[in-house]
Order: sequence, then C-alpha cells, then structure tokens
Amino acid sequence: MIDFILTEKNFDRDNIPWNGNRFLTGNGYFGIRGTLEEYTKENMCAVNMAGIYDRAGDAWRETVNAPNPLYTYVKVNGKKYALPENEPVSHEQKLDFENGLHSRKTVWQTEKGKITVKCERFASMSRRHLIAMRYTFASDFECDAEIITGIDGDVWDINGPHFVKMRTGYEDGVNYVTGVTGEKNIFVTVRDTVNADFNAASETENTEKGVYRRISFKVESQKEYSVEKIAEITTSEDDFEPQGEITEMTYTELKAEHTAAWARIWDISKITIDGDDEAMYALNYSIYHLNCIAPREMKGKSIAARGLSGQVYKGAVFWDTEMFMIDYYIHTEPQIAKTLLQYRIYTLDGARKKAKEYGLKGAYYAWESQDGGYEGCSDYNVTDVFTKRPMRTHFRDKQYHVSAAIVYGLMKYINATGDYDILNEGAMDMAIECAEFYRSLLIKKADEPYYEIHDVVGPDEYHERVNNNAYTNRMAKFVFDTALELIDKYPSDKYDGLKPMLKDSSENIFIRKPDENGIIEQFDGYFKLEDVSVDEVRSRLIDPKEYWGGAYGVAADTQVIKQADVVAMLSMFKDDYTTEVMAKNLEYYEPRTEHGSSLSACMYSLLSCYTNNPEIAYPMFMKSAKADLTKGGKEWAGLVYIGGTHPASAGGAWIAAVKGFAGIREENGELICKPNLPKKWNGMRFKLIYKNKLYVIEVQNNSGAVMIIT
Amino acid sequence: MIDFILTEKNFDRDNIPWNGNRFLTGNGYFGIRGTLEEYTKENMCAVNMAGIYDRAGDAWRETVNAPNPLYTYVKVNGKKYALPENEPVSHEQKLDFENGLHSRKTVWQTEKGKITVKCERFASMSRRHLIAMRYTFASDFECDAEIITGIDGDVWDINGPHFVKMRTGYEDGVNYVTGVTGEKNIFVTVRDTVNADFNAASETENTEKGVYRRISFKVESQKEYSVEKIAEITTSEDDFEPQGEITEMTYTELKAEHTAAWARIWDISKITIDGDDEAMYALNYSIYHLNCIAPREMKGKSIAARGLSGQVYKGAVFWDTEMFMIDYYIHTEPQIAKTLLQYRIYTLDGARKKAKEYGLKGAYYAWESQDGGYEGCSDYNVTDVFTKRPMRTHFRDKQYHVSAAIVYGLMKYINATGDYDILNEGAMDMAIECAEFYRSLLIKKADEPYYEIHDVVGPDEYHERVNNNAYTNRMAKFVFDTALELIDKYPSDKYDGLKPMLKDSSENIFIRKPDENGIIEQFDGYFKLEDVSVDEVRSRLIDPKEYWGGAYGVAADTQVIKQADVVAMLSMFKDDYTTEVMAKNLEYYEPRTEHGSSLSACMYSLLSCYTNNPEIAYPMFMKSAKADLTKGGKEWAGLVYIGGTHPASAGGAWIAAVKGFAGIREENGELICKPNLPKKWNGMRFKLIYKNKLYVIEVQNNSGAVMIIT
Repeated sequence: MIDFILTEKNFDRDNIPWNGNRFLTGNGYFGIRGTLEEYTKENMCAVNMAGIYDRAGDAWRETVNAPNPLYTYVKVNGKKYALPENEPVSHEQKLDFENGLHSRKTVWQTEKGKITVKCERFASMSRRHLIAMRYTFASDFECDAEIITGIDGDVWDINGPHFVKMRTGYEDGVNYVTGVTGEKNIFVTVRDTVNADFNAASETENTEKGVYRRISFKVESQKEYSVEKIAEITTSEDDFEPQGEITEMTYTELKAEHTAAWARIWDISKITIDGDDEAMYALNYSIYHLNCIAPREMKGKSIAARGLSGQVYKGAVFWDTEMFMIDYYIHTEPQIAKTLLQYRIYTLDGARKKAKEYGLKGAYYAWESQDGGYEGCSDYNVTDVFTKRPMRTHFRDKQYHVSAAIVYGLMKYINATGDYDILNEGAMDMAIECAEFYRSLLIKKADEPYYEIHDVVGPDEYHERVNNNAYTNRMAKFVFDTALELIDKYPSDKYDGLKPMLKDSSENIFIRKPDENGIIEQFDGYFKLEDVSVDEVRSRLIDPKEYWGGAYGVAADTQVIKQADVVAMLSMFKDDYTTEVMAKNLEYYEPRTEHGSSLSACMYSLLSCYTNNPEIAYPMFMKSAKADLTKGGKEWAGLVYIGGTHPASAGGAWIAAVKGFAGIREENGELICKPNLPKKWNGMRFKLIYKNKLYVIEVQNNSGAVMIIT
Repeated sequence: MIDFILTEKNFDRDNIPWNGNRFLTGNGYFGIRGTLEEYTKENMCAVNMAGIYDRAGDAWRETVNAPNPLYTYVKVNGKKYALPENEPVSHEQKLDFENGLHSRKTVWQTEKGKITVKCERFASMSRRHLIAMRYTFASDFECDAEIITGIDGDVWDINGPHFVKMRTGYEDGVNYVTGVTGEKNIFVTVRDTVNADFNAASETENTEKGVYRRISFKVESQKEYSVEKIAEITTSEDDFEPQGEITEMTYTELKAEHTAAWARIWDISKITIDGDDEAMYALNYSIYHLNCIAPREMKGKSIAARGLSGQVYKGAVFWDTEMFMIDYYIHTEPQIAKTLLQYRIYTLDGARKKAKEYGLKGAYYAWESQDGGYEGCSDYNVTDVFTKRPMRTHFRDKQYHVSAAIVYGLMKYINATGDYDILNEGAMDMAIECAEFYRSLLIKKADEPYYEIHDVVGPDEYHERVNNNAYTNRMAKFVFDTALELIDKYPSDKYDGLKPMLKDSSENIFIRKPDENGIIEQFDGYFKLEDVSVDEVRSRLIDPKEYWGGAYGVAADTQVIKQADVVAMLSMFKDDYTTEVMAKNLEYYEPRTEHGSSLSACMYSLLSCYTNNPEIAYPMFMKSAKADLTKGGKEWAGLVYIGGTHPASAGGAWIAAVKGFAGIREENGELICKPNLPKKWNGMRFKLIYKNKLYVIEVQNNSGAVMIIT
C-alpha cells in the first residue's frame, strides 16, 4: 500500500510557483497555495476565494485573494530566518493528500547552532471558513526567539489591487483584517486567534495592510515551542455569520474533525489500482484536487479552470467543468454536480444577455464565466509577443460549443442520477434556451438542403473562424435532440411552437461523415491545410512564448491542432461510430495534436480504451493524471501567464480510469462494466454512485468484474 | 495655353524609382520606365511587356520585362560618363506628354572640358512593336569618344529571373537578343539597328546576356554627333511577324508618324479647363497615362493595376480596370473598352475554375488576373514586418466583389455604346455566370427572411472577413438584376430555370438601409468598432511599413477604413439615395478614411459632386489626378513594394472631372450635362463618344453647357 504523500526534500527557489500549485490545500470555499508561511506576495502566496470577483480599473476581472492569515516567521537573537532569503541546511515540504494536511520542516544554521521550524496546516474540510495551523520552533542552543505571525493584507494579485479599503485591528484576543473590494464593495474579513503552549510575551501591532503578533520567548535547547493559530475567513457575500468557532476549538480537535471529513470523502472516492502504484498515486492525487475545490454546501458556485490555485484565467468557470470534472462528482457526490449545474441555472440571465449582444437568441454561456454569468473573456485574450499588443482572439465570440457542453453536463447528471427535478429548478429553460441559441446560429446556403454553422472556434482553438466544425455541429444536434426529448417528456404549451423548429434543426443540420479513408474532417477545408508534424510547427517558432493560433500563428495554416476536437466528439458520441472509424481518426489526429491543452490527453486516452487499445491509452491517461505533478506544463499563451492546477485534467484522468479502463458505462439505463485494463494493471477497486445506489466495483481483469450494489 | 511637358531640372538619385514611373512612355504593347539610357537593372530599368507572364520557381508569377534596347552610354578618352555614378554639372529629364516623347540632357565636367549627352526616345504609337531613340553627343573640346549601345538582357525582375535561356547575336546589321521564359517557353525577341550621322568605326560584340555596338569617333568641339536606334520587340505570343520595319524607316519618319498618332488620340481625349492650369495639366497627364497603357489593336489583353510601369502587383489585372479605367475608354475609344471586356470573356474559364475551387458556382474572377484568368493572388499577400513571415490575407478568397465589378463595367459599356453584340460574343454567359456565383454565396439564417453574404472583404481591405458588407451585397443585387434584365431582353430556354432563382435573390438579399442618422453601416458591427481618427491609428504604428489591416493591424478594430466603400456604393447607385443620405455618409466616412488606396479619393470626389459640393470634391479630384505627379505615395504593404503608376487613379480623375464636375450622365438613354464646377473653373471643353456619336461639350458655367453632336 502506497502513502498518499507528496514530498519535496530540497529547497529550490525556481520551484516556488509550481509548488504553490502542487502543494495546494483547499476546501471548496477557498484554496491555499502551497507556499511557505514566511512568504509574501513576491512568492505568489494566495488564499484564493471561490467565486468572489473584483475588477480593478480596466484590468481583467478576477477572483479575490483574501488577506493571508498564514503569514509567520521566526527571529532568533534578533535575526530573521526565512525562505527564500536564508539558505537552509535542510528543507522538506509535504502534502499528505490523504488527510489534506500541508507541512514543512526547515533547518537553518545560525552562528550559534541549528534552528528548526516546522509547520502543519490545513483548510478545514469540516468547517468551510477555517484555516488551522501549528507552527513549531526548536533550536539546539539557548536563545531569544520571536515568532511573528499575522494577517498579511498586502496580497498577491495578477490584476489588482482589489482592496480599495482595508481595516485592521484587534479586539478580545482576535485580530482581524478586512479588505473591501472596489467594484462591488465586498468585504473579505480574516480573523485569527493564536495560542502558544509556552510562556511568552505577546504584543499586537497593526499597520495599514496587516495585523501582527510578536511572540517573544526564551528558548531552551532541544525543546519544541508550538504556536497554534486558528483563522476564519468570511465575506459579505456569505450567508455565514462568524460563529466564534475560532476561539472555541483547539488545533487538535479541528484536525481530528478535518481528517475525519477527508476520510469520509476518500471512502467513496478512492480508487485502488493493483499492480501500478505510480498510476494509483497520480490518480488519487488528481482526485484529491477535485475534492479540494468542490463547492460543498455552497450555493451559486462552480469550479474555475485553475481550481482555487489563484487568479489565472481570471478565476473563471469554463466548459471544463461540465466536460471534464462533473463526471467525477456525479458518481461520488451528486449534490456537488447539482451545485455546478445550478450555477449555470443562476447564470442563465447572463447567457441570455450574451446571446443578445451578438444578435443571437436563447442562451449563449460565457466562455469565461464569472459571478452572475458575466463574461470574463476579453476580445483580446492573448498578447502578441512581437508587438506587445493585445491580439484579437475569438474565444469570447465564436466558441459556440460552450452552451452545448453545459447541456451535455446536465444530461450526464440526469441520466446518472435520475434527478429530473433539476428540470423544474430552471434546467429545463436552460436546455431549451441553449437549443434556441443553436437554432439562431444555423444558416442555409441558397439551394442547399442542410443547415451549417459558420465562423466558429471549435475545441481546437488554434484554428479560428472555421466553418462546420464537426464537433460543434454534432453538439448543436445533441442540444436540439435533448430539447426535443425533454419537451416530449414534459410537454407544455410554452414549447409547442418550438418543436417543429427543433425537429427541423436536428434533422437538417450538417453532420460530417467519415471520408473514404474513414476520417472525419475537423472543419471545412481542414484537409487542405499543410500536413506537417507538430515538431516541424514547433521549430517554426521565433519566440517560444508566441501564440500558435490566431490568424498568423505557426499552427494556423497547418493540420496541427491544439487538442482533441474530432476525437472529443467521437468519445462523446461513440455509439454513433464504428470502432474502426474511431480507431482511424485516433490514428490520424493523434500525431497532429500538440496537446497544448490539459483537456486533450484524457480524450485520446478514453477513445483509445473505446477502441480496445489500453496500452495506447495508458501514457495519455498518465499525462492527465500527472498534470499537476509534472513540472514544465504550458505556462504561457502569448505573454499571459496561464500556470496553476489543472482540475479538468484531473477529472479527465478519472474519466479515463473509470469510463475507459474500467469500462463503466450505461446501457439501457443500467450501469455495466466492460474493462479494458492495461497489461500492467491486475485489477481496480472503487465505489460509484449511480441512480442513488452505491456500487462497489472490483475489476479483476479484462474478462471479469464484480459489481456490488449496496 | 499650358505645355504638356513634365520636367525635372536636377539630378536626385533618390528620385530614380519615382521618375521611372512618372516619366513612363508606352504604347499599350509595352511600357518603358522613365529611366535613363545608361541605367541597368540596379536602377529599375524595364521595358515591361503587357500580358506576358512567367513564373520563376515558387515566386509570384509576374509580367516579363524585355531585354532593354535603350542601353547606351558614352566614353570620352576612354573614361565612362554615366548617371548615377558621375555627378553631372547639369541634368534635365523631360516628358513631352502631348507627343509621347521622353528626353534627357546631361552635362558632365571632364578633365578637359564639358561634354553633353542628349537623348530623345519614344514607344511608337503608330507601330506597336517599335522603340526609336536618338542619342546625341557633343563636347566643348576635341576628344576620342565611344558610344556603347546595346540590348541588355540582364533585366530587372522582382520575382525573376524569367529568361532561362538567352540567345544573342547579329546578322545583316541587325543585332538581337532573345530571352526564353521558363514556365511557358515564351520567346521575347528584341532586334535593333543603329545609324550614326557621322563617320565612325563600329564593332559588335555579344555576351551571354546582351549584344553591344561600340561606335568610336573623333569629336570636334561644339559639334553634335547623333546615333539613331530603332528597336523592335516581338514575342512568340504575337500574331506579328517581324516586318523589317526597323531597317526601312528613319527616326524622323517614325517620330512624325508617332506624334501624328498621339495628335489623333488627343483630339478626342484632351480636356480643357479654363481658369485652372494646374488641374488641366494634371488631368491630361492622367489621360496621357491611360493612353500609354491602352491595349490598342490587341486581343485578349487588359490593363494591369500598375499599368506598364513594371512588375509590381504581378502585372495583374484588378477590378480597377472595370471600375475606374473603362469609363474613359468607353467615351473616347470604345474599341479599347471592348477589348478590356473581351479579356474577361476570354478568362471566363479561369473564373469558373476559381469558383469551383471554393465550392462555389458560376464565375468567380481572379482578384489578380493573369493570362487565361489565372489567379495571381496568393493566400499570403503581405509580409509581416515583425516576423518577416508571410501573412494569410483574404484578398484572393473573400473579395467577392470582383465579379460584380466586371458586370458593372460591362453594363457601363453596353449602356454607353449600345453594343449589345458583345453579349453574343460571350458576355451574356459571363454576366449570367457571375449571377450564379453570387447566388451561391447567399445564405439565409434559420427563421430569417433575407439572404446575407458573410465572411467577405469589401473594397476597404483593412477589415477582413466581415458580414453583409453593404457594398458587396448591393453589387450582388446589381448582378442579379442585370442577369434578369439581359435574360428578359434575350430569352433562351437555357436560362428559364435561372429566372426564379435570380428573382428570389434580387428580392430577398439584405440591402442595408441608412440608420436613424442617415448613415449606412459598412458591415455588420462596424459601428461598434473603436471610433478614432486616422491620425490616432497612424500614431499606433510601431513600424511605418506595417500592414494596417489583417487580423491585428492598427486599423482592424477601428472604424478607420482604407478606401471608399459605402461611398463607392453610393456613387455607383446614386439614384437609389437622396442627396441628404449621400451627403451624410460622405461626412461620416471621409474623416475615417485613410485613402490608403489610389482608388479612394476619386470616389469621394465624385460623390461630393453628386451632393453639390464641388469645393469639397476638388482637392480629392486633384489628389487622384496628381497621384503619379506627387512624390511619397504609398509604396509598401507590409514588406512588399507596391510603387508604380496609378492608372485607376488616373481613370478616377477622369470620372470625377467628366461625370462629377461636368456632370455628364445618362438619363432615359440620353446624355445630359449637369455641371457642378468648382469656383475656380470658368469652363471645360472636351469630346465624348456616346452611342456611336461624337459629342463636343463646352461647359460654360454651372448653369449652362453646350453639347454638339457631330
């Protein structure tokens, strides 16, 4: 049995941004980047608040980082010891992702001897607003020490500053910092209490942007001195009133409650793989991240593309959620999946507005959805590396497939939970209005029989403004069919007029068929583009950061694509295609795919399982599962930093494992298991929820599986 | 009375390229750049052959420059004197554009005294294949002189070399150089004879690329020594067999015949303006250029966008011809206008192929038409100044309006000549197939009543891939209406099926109406673009040569346009609009127009006349008329050189003068005159041909005009 522990044994300052991501802790309400306690904004510290947005001036709107209650460092005989400034003798950073615990241990050599700092902390999984931390100091000589610990309101921002006003202070042993955002006057308050297990003098000091305690004490050699800090974060957007929790419970009590909460989560979500510890580790690490960012017991929130790892991608919700993440929640905690869909219902009005803005009908969801469905995506989403000018991109206006992804997510949810009630809660309107949206995109050439959709950006963003993207057209048909199915199930006068229109749309939309070689052309004219290798295209870059897509990018006039597009379509509509067609398209598109998106590899992996090639699927599954464990992911789009965690990749790894290798699927409303394990795997064990029943699944090998319904 | 003489009195080496254009001579079969006799390819010498194309390797196909028979220089006591190497004491270059004569006079100081070189030359207007030249030497001291004169086959090329084989030699006193093109094995032969009016020793020498005579003589002080050279250019594409003309006539005889031919041309084409010599000079200079490049007595040829001034724009024929040049020929030498249209008939098959290439029907004419209607326009027509990469432009694939311009040109011709016979010669099919082409562009949104045309580039090329460009849609309707009108006039079973389709197209195509302010939006969403001044946009350039258009150019997301677009449409369909609407659109669009095309100013000028604002029209008329007289025209599109003469601007000046200021128009099949002269002009006199009758028109002032029909 392997430990679910991620460890870094040395200190490498170049890893600070990456460690911030991979050592992340979180509880859905906020995420704490895996930075060290003494770090400030220079080291990309963040307590990133889920779904709390602000816009500073003309910069991009993004999520807000709370004042940082972790901020702590030590002074020995008046001299500060901190990373990255002071080179340590030894350093270790750990994430116990079974228990959601972050810890570090650092030893410095001082003039008089060695000192050791340890710290353990967690984002409470049982109490959404709490962070708890135990900070421990020891030295091998007698000295005077001070632990300075506070709430640091001078936070890291990409497009800040967001706090236009700040209040700091202390009262009855509780320190606080309140930041007030400029755009909507949102209050973000952090309170803390600190207890030392030793005698110490303590003074509190507040500045404009922070409040700090200075705990001074005499140190005996070889003795540990621990300070416990409980911090509470609230915002004026919550329905939560401060409950005084931070003064009532000890670190140890909170930790016990927290790890118990994680144990409950793992009980349903853990996946055991026999024979491949590396895969099992990576997959469960991915699942850990999905659990850290799930909006549990929260309303009106979804999950941002970079989870809670910071402000990258503006903290916005993308199609990633419904395409790659929701499956996991549907089958482990369906209420979370429902919350994600409710976010789309709550933001339907934003989608209506966006459709109207473009002279379209129905609901056109935001490509980068923020609070209220506000479209966070700019018309200029990439910076030209040569001219430093913003480049006009078409993510915002032409990625029509986003609305379909939401309907697709809805139907995955309904089909796997049987929860048709959600339709009465707004999802029916949502689905119908998405269908109306696609209807308004249809055009017909004079004297041609079928509808087309022109001027779109498909999943492969490197090719902008194409016609009849196979994926987009097929998804539009799916939405038409879904709307018809739902109207048939829940007839209403309201929808009578729509039916013939939807039927006409579904029947007459152009769905591209495989050509004589069995290949489905990605869009009109794709096959006429230069057919050249990914490496050749890469070799044409003048600047490594330049954007591959857009009108003139190196990939734009070639067949090199960013990510799964036709392959995504095939994996989503596999029953419409023969295994041979799926295999031929995989074979055609895979060498032409840069996998420049973390959404890509899992789709190829899944489709490779569907075509009975688990060995081909395996490395792509591993790529997805290890997205956040592997250094050197794509960190730039033009001059825009896009690093952070990759929850869609994590969700994609789960899909590849469960739906691909284990072969879990629905047939005639039943859950079945048709495993396709890679040779290395002797078996898999995991639990799943399907239509309110818990399935305990044990895949023994490719010919057999046991499913126990409890 | 002013002289029609253009003079440059000093030598300025920076003017060499520009002088090559403005001192151009030509006879339609070829153009001779206004370079000096001693120049070679380094100084952009060219005898540019009309409609003879070649493609070298992968470079752009372009017209061919013939071996240069002008090549001549002098040696005095063994030392060569030539520009630009030897600084002259005085220098004068002249174009007598009344007589089509180019001349120069240069004085150098030598060690022993001054020498003078004079040369007069012309492209024979009476004998299409001939060039004649008289080269004169004198000195104010006795010396030994040599005149070296030859045929220089080492020609200037932009995308050459085009001659893969070359033969040089001499026989019976005639020297010759034949270049053979690589792509189609076309022979271009230049022969010459030389006669001196003095006793001299002459030897001939040929090299791989040229043949040269060395004429050596003793010079007496103050005496002129003249050498006359008659050269004949033929190609294997001609129906012409060398007639021995070059040996039969003297320079003086040829010159008399040539100037007589020009006199006949001027008799019909000259425009007299009372009270404004500058305008009269510039306008007739423009007319001179139109006459130099007209394909007289030639079949299957049209006029390139840069006339015969070189290989710029690949020597290709653009919409310029039918939009801006044909009017002049229709009303002065209708046979030339017919020749231009016959070129389009001959190239119909190329247009059919191009339509098919894009999955369209009918005839989609080449944006840059070469022999056989071959599309010379590349998908990559501009070079990025920052990356030096070719930029994907949409001139070739999306400038749909080109076919309509041809039909428009045809109808201008038919209406003004009454020559319906041309319809039987292929123009009927041409018009109908253009209508079929536009039909195949029509799309209809589901649930919308009208047809739209999406994804086009209008005349304003700075905005690519727009929807419902007002100009393009209106032109498409014009083509539908024209086809219907012609079918009604000449019914045939062949067209029966088409009529309902054309009617439907004409009735239902979306024609944008003026908005509440009377302004017609150039395309869908144009008004939403940044509304900013031309100067502001110009100030955003990082590199002065960078392209304003394309996806990311400085103008692309602004309302700044390259050239007349809505204004072009209004001037072409003025009867559909009130004067108020025309005036408001002029007022709106003019400050937003860069006039980055030489096709722009004349349209604004014409429409300003139509709205009774001749004073506003005047500077724009002058800009058009002086396009080739003014230094500093736009010479770059990205890194591509686009200098040369501007015959469309010349034609536009003629249109502005005749149709604008003189107010010549058709009403109910009659020619009428409604003058709108600028204050400065006391009157205008000119001749016009209309329906086979010659009109002598004398505009006395804005209230009166006399038209005499002879």
